Amino acid sequence: MSQYNDQCLSTNPKTANDYHGAFPYCSVHAQLRPYVADCSAACRRNAPFSEKDSLQDVVWQIRNISNKLKGTPIQPKICSLLIVSKPGEDAVEQKLIEIVKWLLSHKSFVVYVQHTLKSLFEEHERLQYWTPLLCAKQSQLFDLVLTLGGDGTVLYTSRLFQRTVPPIMPFAMGTLGFLTHFDVSKFRESIQSISKEMYIHLRTRFECRYMRKKDSHKRIELGDHVFSNSLVENEETHEFVESLVVLNEVVIDRGPNSAMTKIILYVDSKYLTTVEADGLCLSTPTGSTAYSLATGGSLCHPEIPVVIISPICAHSLSLRPIHVPDSMYLHVVIPEDAPHSGWISFDGRNRTELRPGDFLMVRVSRYPFPSVYSREEQADWFDSIKRTLMWNQN
Amino acid sequence: MSQYNDQCLSTNPKTANDYHGAFPYCSVHAQLRPYVADCSAACRRNAPFSEKDSLQDVVWQIRNISNKLKGTPIQPKICSLLIVSKPGEDAVEQKLIEIVKWLLSHKSFVVYVQHTLKSLFEEHERLQYWTPLLCAKQSQLFDLVLTLGGDGTVLYTSRLFQRTVPPIMPFAMGTLGFLTHFDVSKFRESIQSISKEMYIHLRTRFECRYMRKKDSHKRIELGDHVFSNSLVENEETHEFVESLVVLNEVVIDRGPNSAMTKIILYVDSKYLTTVEADGLCLSTPTGSTAYSLATGGSLCHPEIPVVIISPICAHSLSLRPIHVPDSMYLHVVIPEDAPHSGWISFDGRNRTELRPGDFLMVRVSRYPFPSVYSREEQADWFDSIKRTLMWNQN
Amino acid sequence: MSQYNDQCLSTNPKTANDYHGAFPYCSVHAQLRPYVADCSAACRRNAPFSEKDSLQDVVWQIRNISNKLKGTPIQPKICSLLIVSKPGEDAVEQKLIEIVKWLLSHKSFVVYVQHTLKSLFEEHERLQYWTPLLCAKQSQLFDLVLTLGGDGTVLYTSRLFQRTVPPIMPFAMGTLGFLTHFDVSKFRESIQSISKEMYIHLRTRFECRYMRKKDSHKRIELGDHVFSNSLVENEETHEFVESLVVLNEVVIDRGPNSAMTKIILYVDSKYLTTVEADGLCLSTPTGSTAYSLATGGSLCHPEIPVVIISPICAHSLSLRPIHVPDSMYLHVVIPEDAPHSGWISFDGRNRTELRPGDFLMVRVSRYPFPSVYSREEQADWFDSIKRTLMWNQN
Amino acid sequence: MSQYNDQCLSTNPKTANDYHGAFPYCSVHAQLRPYVADCSAACRRNAPFSEKDSLQDVVWQIRNISNKLKGTPIQPKICSLLIVSKPGEDAVEQKLIEIVKWLLSHKSFVVYVQHTLKSLFEEHERLQYWTPLLCAKQSQLFDLVLTLGGDGTVLYTSRLFQRTVPPIMPFAMGTLGFLTHFDVSKFRESIQSISKEMYIHLRTRFECRYMRKKDSHKRIELGDHVFSNSLVENEETHEFVESLVVLNEVVIDRGPNSAMTKIILYVDSKYLTTVEADGLCLSTPTGSTAYSLATGGSLCHPEIPVVIISPICAHSLSLRPIHVPDSMYLHVVIPEDAPHSGWISFDGRNRTELRPGDFLMVRVSRYPFPSVYSREEQADWFDSIKRTLMWNQN
Repeated sequence: MSQYNDQCLSTNPKTANDYHGAFPYCSVHAQLRPYVADCSAACRRNAPFSEKDSLQDVVWQIRNISNKLKGTPIQPKICSLLIVSKPGEDAVEQKLIEIVKWLLSHKSFVVYVQHTLKSLFEEHERLQYWTPLLCAKQSQLFDLVLTLGGDGTVLYTSRLFQRTVPPIMPFAMGTLGFLTHFDVSKFRESIQSISKEMYIHLRTRFECRYMRKKDSHKRIELGDHVFSNSLVENEETHEFVESLVVLNEVVIDRGPNSAMTKIILYVDSKYLTTVEADGLCLSTPTGSTAYSLATGGSLCHPEIPVVIISPICAHSLSLRPIHVPDSMYLHVVIPEDAPHSGWISFDGRNRTELRPGDFLMVRVSRYPFPSVYSREEQADWFDSIKRTLMWNQN
Repeated sequence: MSQYNDQCLSTNPKTANDYHGAFPYCSVHAQLRPYVADCSAACRRNAPFSEKDSLQDVVWQIRNISNKLKGTPIQPKICSLLIVSKPGEDAVEQKLIEIVKWLLSHKSFVVYVQHTLKSLFEEHERLQYWTPLLCAKQSQLFDLVLTLGGDGTVLYTSRLFQRTVPPIMPFAMGTLGFLTHFDVSKFRESIQSISKEMYIHLRTRFECRYMRKKDSHKRIELGDHVFSNSLVENEETHEFVESLVVLNEVVIDRGPNSAMTKIILYVDSKYLTTVEADGLCLSTPTGSTAYSLATGGSLCHPEIPVVIISPICAHSLSLRPIHVPDSMYLHVVIPEDAPHSGWISFDGRNRTELRPGDFLMVRVSRYPFPSVYSREEQADWFDSIKRTLMWNQN
Repeated sequence: MSQYNDQCLSTNPKTANDYHGAFPYCSVHAQLRPYVADCSAACRRNAPFSEKDSLQDVVWQIRNISNKLKGTPIQPKICSLLIVSKPGEDAVEQKLIEIVKWLLSHKSFVVYVQHTLKSLFEEHERLQYWTPLLCAKQSQLFDLVLTLGGDGTVLYTSRLFQRTVPPIMPFAMGTLGFLTHFDVSKFRESIQSISKEMYIHLRTRFECRYMRKKDSHKRIELGDHVFSNSLVENEETHEFVESLVVLNEVVIDRGPNSAMTKIILYVDSKYLTTVEADGLCLSTPTGSTAYSLATGGSLCHPEIPVVIISPICAHSLSLRPIHVPDSMYLHVVIPEDAPHSGWISFDGRNRTELRPGDFLMVRVSRYPFPSVYSREEQADWFDSIKRTLMWNQN
Repeated sequence: MSQYNDQCLSTNPKTANDYHGAFPYCSVHAQLRPYVADCSAACRRNAPFSEKDSLQDVVWQIRNISNKLKGTPIQPKICSLLIVSKPGEDAVEQKLIEIVKWLLSHKSFVVYVQHTLKSLFEEHERLQYWTPLLCAKQSQLFDLVLTLGGDGTVLYTSRLFQRTVPPIMPFAMGTLGFLTHFDVSKFRESIQSISKEMYIHLRTRFECRYMRKKDSHKRIELGDHVFSNSLVENEETHEFVESLVVLNEVVIDRGPNSAMTKIILYVDSKYLTTVEADGLCLSTPTGSTAYSLATGGSLCHPEIPVVIISPICAHSLSLRPIHVPDSMYLHVVIPEDAPHSGWISFDGRNRTELRPGDFLMVRVSRYPFPSVYSREEQADWFDSIKRTLMWNQN
């Protein structure tokens, strides 16, 4: 997937205000307003408030909206539509051209195609081009996003929209995946159908904030007091580097080292344990069918509000996967005296070094991922695991 | 644990009304009223309503109350106190006598001791005796329950109160367990402390309704339509036998047979899969540290609203444990043409035959289990798994 | 599989001599003589010798013969042939009739069919009928055994021949299984082929001796001294009840009880551990693809000389499956103070109670299971796991 | 462990003759001659012979010698003794000085200490210094090797002696490990004891030959024919780079990449499967308590002649660990069209790139690892797993 352009994706929320106002942005979101009205009060509370309070608000708000959206059809007003397609494959480009032609001739949408594919298309007044920067800065421009590829393309789209995510309609180029439940061969019917009536499922994402130790020579006494309760944390000892959201999981592993890693884990600012393992996988319920499963984790229905913590090849036989409520936030630290760094990957990408003494903070993002369903293709997670994992088929 | 008297424990809710009014009953519950006020509306909806609606109400209500109770101290008015002690052990009886003496001389509570232990005590105007029947019929008599033994004694107490459960203060006779977090050697200080201020954590329980096929010779076409959406279900084909609540798990296994069992599983009235295995474990998050763990399940924080479905020695290598939201209800059926019955056990007890064509319905109970904590012993589930499982200790 | 007649299967070896002379018996075995000559010396050692010495001899002898047989074709002289077919299925009976007709008209073999199917056949001078008793007493009558059914039919055939087993040619009625690698639709070609040249693979079997405590009221101090080193053991405290061989596994489990079982395990007369679990599976490498796999065991190539010990849903997270050399013998005991009995099953059959204080002794049998292959169907265990387990296919 | 000097460790056996004559070398080995006499014949067979034949000889020879050594005390003539100690730790250096002093004053041995520690010692006529090169070239100089440290020091010693290994007497500086069963606080008694009588257990090692694709641009049709049966293989397409032995395991993993790796596995020159996983662990039975266990492998008694193949976080749920006889050899290949290289580590060290199209050949080494035991400390593997893994202790 290294074909994707990942520049400009990280965001740096500097004030508590930045965390407010997840909804609404685009015109579809605007239509969600009645459903989210009673949550906005929670967001109007005065900053600064604690990490824990903020997180509680977020998960409560998301759960509320999710509940209200479940089974409730929305009549969307779609003015503009963005298409994210897997680059570098002929079949995908052919299908993209076919879809764009059909959209321009049968719909009045403004259609955005990625700018690297400009050469594929003739000029058209309603055909425009997007860049990652445009997505990062002006997500409210897009009323709907079509993805064309596999689960990887959906993950890339999640990276494109670090904050508010427009409703996502994911088409599978080949066999249907966990995240791609629309069959591309029926794109006309599916787009017609959801233009009239769409269902939205919110998928939890995690926000991962990477904090670097300021003075690499000075020994900090790591401990509960370091992972304080305030939103802007540890200014004395650590500086914010970047923040990335993930839809599946964030993994901290030993990277190029052949020896196991020691990883210290704090839950809600309290020391939990020190993991000796190849690494640690922190997965959303959506990610429970992905890497978390390979580490030995259980399958989790995406509606369960949970953070799945799975060690990767743990040294201790008793260190089983552990599920904690998504109202808890986690800090992952490499011990200051560790001989090697740990390495982070976000949804399997953006490999980043986590040096001894640095830490990664992981919590539910204020910006969930709205997946679009038609009435006919109402989400059935159980079908997807039977189809994709051959679960209990042999 | 066969010493316990299990008579009179099952209940038979005949009307939808029976499901309402979980709160409040006893005087402590009465004090919870301000916290539960806004939930009662949900319960006043007109019967009959569907299984799914009813369940959604229940889980929403419990989650709401749980959230409000978390971190909120209650000043209880305790008038009467019931003690459940593990029978047949001298050490327990000695401790029981010591506690009763102290309570009668230092507190003005009416104290209820199990009637089988009458011979241990001299008469006292505030000393009374309980039977399982009294607990089943008049749980509102008791403002607080002390348990004296191990986790098994707490499970027995859960069985005693099939409906509303008074606040439970669990003392461990030996080492602290998952469910027994009070140290009996400090019973004076602990009772003094919680008399002034107590914290309550609600633990989810499952209600398990066992339905027997009416005509064992007649073949029913089992299918989604059988597991209809109405509360009083399948009157034509099946009759209600009994209903039992569990705090840890309900297990359906092959019992005395040496061959594997086939178990059909429906989720929300829809066919999920047919499990070929030694059995199937349906566990609450509380039970995730018990039998579910032995079957290969993950550890789940008790606040996660989840039903853990774990196959026991499944034939299929791909049949991993699966977690579903606790707003889903499950039906477990032995195929009509199965050569053997399945066998149910409820929290490891009450072995019951599940004949081919019979079914078991499992859903979150309207009556959660209120566990009492003092400020000093604020629940820490993470501590309990480290202590009890030696989690990540070797 | 309860259709099979299991009477007369157990054997009671009373003297050390009974353990000698596994080879050769039938005419095919006679042809194996050159390969086994140098092993007979080991068997001529004077009785009584110790369990351990006897076992070392046996495994060394089997390994030697196995090595010599590997890749070495045998030109068999087949005079008589026995057919074991799965009872109660029309398709099997039709195929059986077809095979018998062909054998009687195209081959000069005496053909033995099970006596319960007498009514299917007309009289023929070379058609005879077998009973379990005949197999038990006179296995040397049969130069080749055809099995017709599935893996269960092969296991039944293994039970029929508790001591010397004639070469077994296993036909699969449906899809090929782990033990049934001949396709019944090509029975003519296959029988022609192996009549000229056959390959033999020896599969290890376990001998399981069940010893009952003589005086159920008297407490024995169980300990290493009880499981002495002599072949006829523990005459003072225990009496021999029966001995059964298994091809896949012997399982000791909790049977009808809903509580876990405590099982004490001795290896080579030395205490190993006490297992708290639903049960314990002792599997041959052949059985590693059967129940052992469901308990979490690894796949083991059948040539590895190993006993696989897998706990079933163990209480302890650190109690992983453990593989010991097949030159070790095991004793399995239920503690004398256990509240419940354990229950044994042999290759999934012959459920037998193991009362507290009784024990089961398990060791490699002197009588392995010779599986026949043609040149074309040279055993490929790797193919069988890919085909049957869909190993690494999803 | 990066303190160790690993230069000069790899060997390049160029002719089949190099594989012969594993025994005997040093004076203790000379005393083993009576036990190995009948194996030498096998080694005198004419080269070139096939990989498979060569391997069969090796494993048969090792098994024979192992069996003869088991329980048979040897009266060693020790003239010279080499000490390998963990570098960089004061406590180890103090103990080393103490041991050397005692040896020089109480024994007539020539004592070899690693040359990097020369500064710790005064000159003595019987004190000499070793380098890795000396060990690699002249292992027959040393009649006994003492190791001082932990299991890592024993693994380093195994690396020092790529071919014939002198008897190894492993002392644990801290708690006893899997490989370090002598208590350093009793070094005097232990050395006295084994000077009179020692027991030797042979531990299997694997030889890992790394072959590089000659022309990285030319596409080879990888397939069974590439992994031919001849000892010097694939001269046309691949060139030999190096060969290293391992005592625990060889691991091929994704190294610094965050994406899974595809690894093709051949067994005995035949395609087995393509593994999609974080990596693949090929472990000796000795290594079954090390990394293999963390990947989910079973515990294997070191006497079982087995290669344990464990996938690391496999994509497929059905891809369980698989055990194959140690008479099979394996080829591990990264597909030619793979986007990334794989990375090899040998006993957790010597990280080496395995580029697409390169391959690694793994088979039992002709040079096993002789571990020394005293009568009192007769090897008990079961004790070591109880002690070190807390196996079944919680």
